[in-house]
Amino acid sequence: MDYEKLLATRTANMKASAIRELLKVAASPGMISLGGGLPSPDSFPLELMHELTERVLRKYGAAAMQYDMTEGFGPLRRALIDYCATKGVDAKLENIYISSGSQGFLDAIGKVLVSPGDIVAVEGPTYLAALQALNAYDARYAMIQTDDEGLIPESLEYVLRTNEVKFVYTIPTFQNPSGKTIGLKRRIAIADIIQRYNVLLIEDDPYSSLRYRGEHLPTIKSMAPEHVIYVSTLSKIFAPGLRIGFCVAPEAIGKWLTIVKQGVDLHSSTYAQALGAEYLLGGFVPPQVEKIIKIYQPKLDAMLLALEQNLPDGYKWSRPEGGMFLWVEGPKGLDMEDVYHIAVKKNVAFVPGKYFFPNPADGIETMRLNFTCVTEEQIHYAIKALAEALQEETLLVNHA
Amino acid sequence: MDYEKLLATRTANMKASAIRELLKVAASPGMISLGGGLPSPDSFPLELMHELTERVLRKYGAAAMQYDMTEGFGPLRRALIDYCATKGVDAKLENIYISSGSQGFLDAIGKVLVSPGDIVAVEGPTYLAALQALNAYDARYAMIQTDDEGLIPESLEYVLRTNEVKFVYTIPTFQNPSGKTIGLKRRIAIADIIQRYNVLLIEDDPYSSLRYRGEHLPTIKSMAPEHVIYVSTLSKIFAPGLRIGFCVAPEAIGKWLTIVKQGVDLHSSTYAQALGAEYLLGGFVPPQVEKIIKIYQPKLDAMLLALEQNLPDGYKWSRPEGGMFLWVEGPKGLDMEDVYHIAVKKNVAFVPGKYFFPNPADGIETMRLNFTCVTEEQIHYAIKALAEALQEETLLVNHA
Repeated sequence: MDYEKLLATRTANMKASAIRELLKVAASPGMISLGGGLPSPDSFPLELMHELTERVLRKYGAAAMQYDMTEGFGPLRRALIDYCATKGVDAKLENIYISSGSQGFLDAIGKVLVSPGDIVAVEGPTYLAALQALNAYDARYAMIQTDDEGLIPESLEYVLRTNEVKFVYTIPTFQNPSGKTIGLKRRIAIADIIQRYNVLLIEDDPYSSLRYRGEHLPTIKSMAPEHVIYVSTLSKIFAPGLRIGFCVAPEAIGKWLTIVKQGVDLHSSTYAQALGAEYLLGGFVPPQVEKIIKIYQPKLDAMLLALEQNLPDGYKWSRPEGGMFLWVEGPKGLDMEDVYHIAVKKNVAFVPGKYFFPNPADGIETMRLNFTCVTEEQIHYAIKALAEALQEETLLVNHA
Repeated sequence: MDYEKLLATRTANMKASAIRELLKVAASPGMISLGGGLPSPDSFPLELMHELTERVLRKYGAAAMQYDMTEGFGPLRRALIDYCATKGVDAKLENIYISSGSQGFLDAIGKVLVSPGDIVAVEGPTYLAALQALNAYDARYAMIQTDDEGLIPESLEYVLRTNEVKFVYTIPTFQNPSGKTIGLKRRIAIADIIQRYNVLLIEDDPYSSLRYRGEHLPTIKSMAPEHVIYVSTLSKIFAPGLRIGFCVAPEAIGKWLTIVKQGVDLHSSTYAQALGAEYLLGGFVPPQVEKIIKIYQPKLDAMLLALEQNLPDGYKWSRPEGGMFLWVEGPKGLDMEDVYHIAVKKNVAFVPGKYFFPNPADGIETMRLNFTCVTEEQIHYAIKALAEALQEETLLVNHA
């Protein structure tokens, strides 16, 4: 059978995540990968799982294994009210929805809101899987400019003034891919702009708990609650393999997110949600976050130091106070994909930054580095090798 | 903010699952519900969960809590090769894909294959949530006629001859909603037709293990492997709350299912998949299926007997040899939704059959009855009350 001729027109717009293809190379034996986005397996609370299982079976019994409401497992939704309050997000039960990872909401929001050709305003660079989710609904993108402090409010305002934007999508804290964080003043300005332009903003916040230094910043949701859907996850504070995301949304949108989710998976795993509920209710988040910070902070510091020691003039990089990524910008004219091919020969992998831009002609000279899944020794070696690869590529370019 | 004006055009085509709305009434205290589609909570292998947890943590450790491949957790996919062989389905690893419930594949298949306006051929009646998943992609439907033995091959052939059909969707065994099973001769005819017309068929098979009497029938997949995507689930042989569906598909389609799933949820819960893998590998399926049959068979028999004893002339109903549902057809002119409103006053709920037809003008005189979540005593009472409701409605209609 010729299966290709059966494909829908939208399918032609899709392609395998470039990161995943690159990561196949990155997964080769002996490779030091700065390319992934995985939490360290050392960070997972494995030792807790028996106790959580015990609690789940005792408290919920068969209900933890049964079909459940599309909106989410009641005890988890209720537990998230308190958790969201720690983020300054004021939520009632009817505002909290569970999905299969926060990715589930990127898909559902696209399905509910995006008609083919609708414009979504995103930071450049932005989260690749958000583009992937929205591409399936034929979204177009308006790119908001960023600098060292992330999204530039004036650029947001310009984009809103010159485009009919369906919604704005941003990761304000320790952004994936850049590691950058939008400062307080800018958050206030953004909250003001979206209210003045009466536009919806999706605040994707998976990383804010992973702050290794500096002060926690208020969410944009807390400043413009009616204009923001707050999306987060238990992936970074518990375990990604449970696939539990959540959002805080106006009920008028949440009801549509629920209807589309019915068609997508009926509901997320009740059992995983029950484990998540007991994890939150048992007070396990604060010690777990403390444990994660102890694991990640030295890795981040090692990478910042290695970049300082090895990268030549003409390079700059983000200096995040948390999260899992940082971002390197080389001189204009450098193609990081070429550097990538040199680096993998030295057994070091990363992700060329252009993949994180809605327009693939942008960000040619950038790269994303992840530091959570490698040791400090590996970081030291890898950044040195990367500096060599950059130098070799620069020589090649200058000769050509 | 006026959120409604933000909705995508496709969102207007969606509505909350009618069953779910009706089930809100069905969930009232004191109601005997024949309306749901839930497995009996008594059937879940709760006592196994500690042992499975132990095995998962010992064998897979942190890998069970980590991000994983979109295609599915390797050990589960490998275990499913043997499981599928028990269904006569010959699968290699690269043909097996995992999703968040089999619903995940209905969504993914719609996304990959259905361009707006494409025609999907479905049985009338068919699975409501399949229509819901495909509606999101603006599918249209061609209805294949059914009789006591399910889908009529001649009608399938007529539909294929007179329409350009993207694919055929069928639940051949103990169908939801009708409980009907396509016999062996018809399966052979269907396999022949889809090969002659070179059309893809989705064989949705959640219930075939729940056979209480009679002989197991070969899957259509086993007869026309290149033309069939076989979709099934652990929901009915383990627990639905884990949300583990799987399919056996040609790799040329599976690769697209994987790409769209990346955007939808990255992958299904690794932890739930690891529990599923250990459940299959531990040999727990056969005793569990035996236990379920012991629970459900007397309920089915009680319902068949009660229908025999209580329903007046002019009614017919399916006599399934397994599954969770049966189907009642009343005389033409009767509106089962009116009967529904009388029945709920007698504390008995069911689902009017018209909701399971692509054209809501069909099946007005039909209803779906579920027997897995009620006791034999409740079944006896409920069918008696239902017969009274039918009689009252008939009197009303004859008076009008």
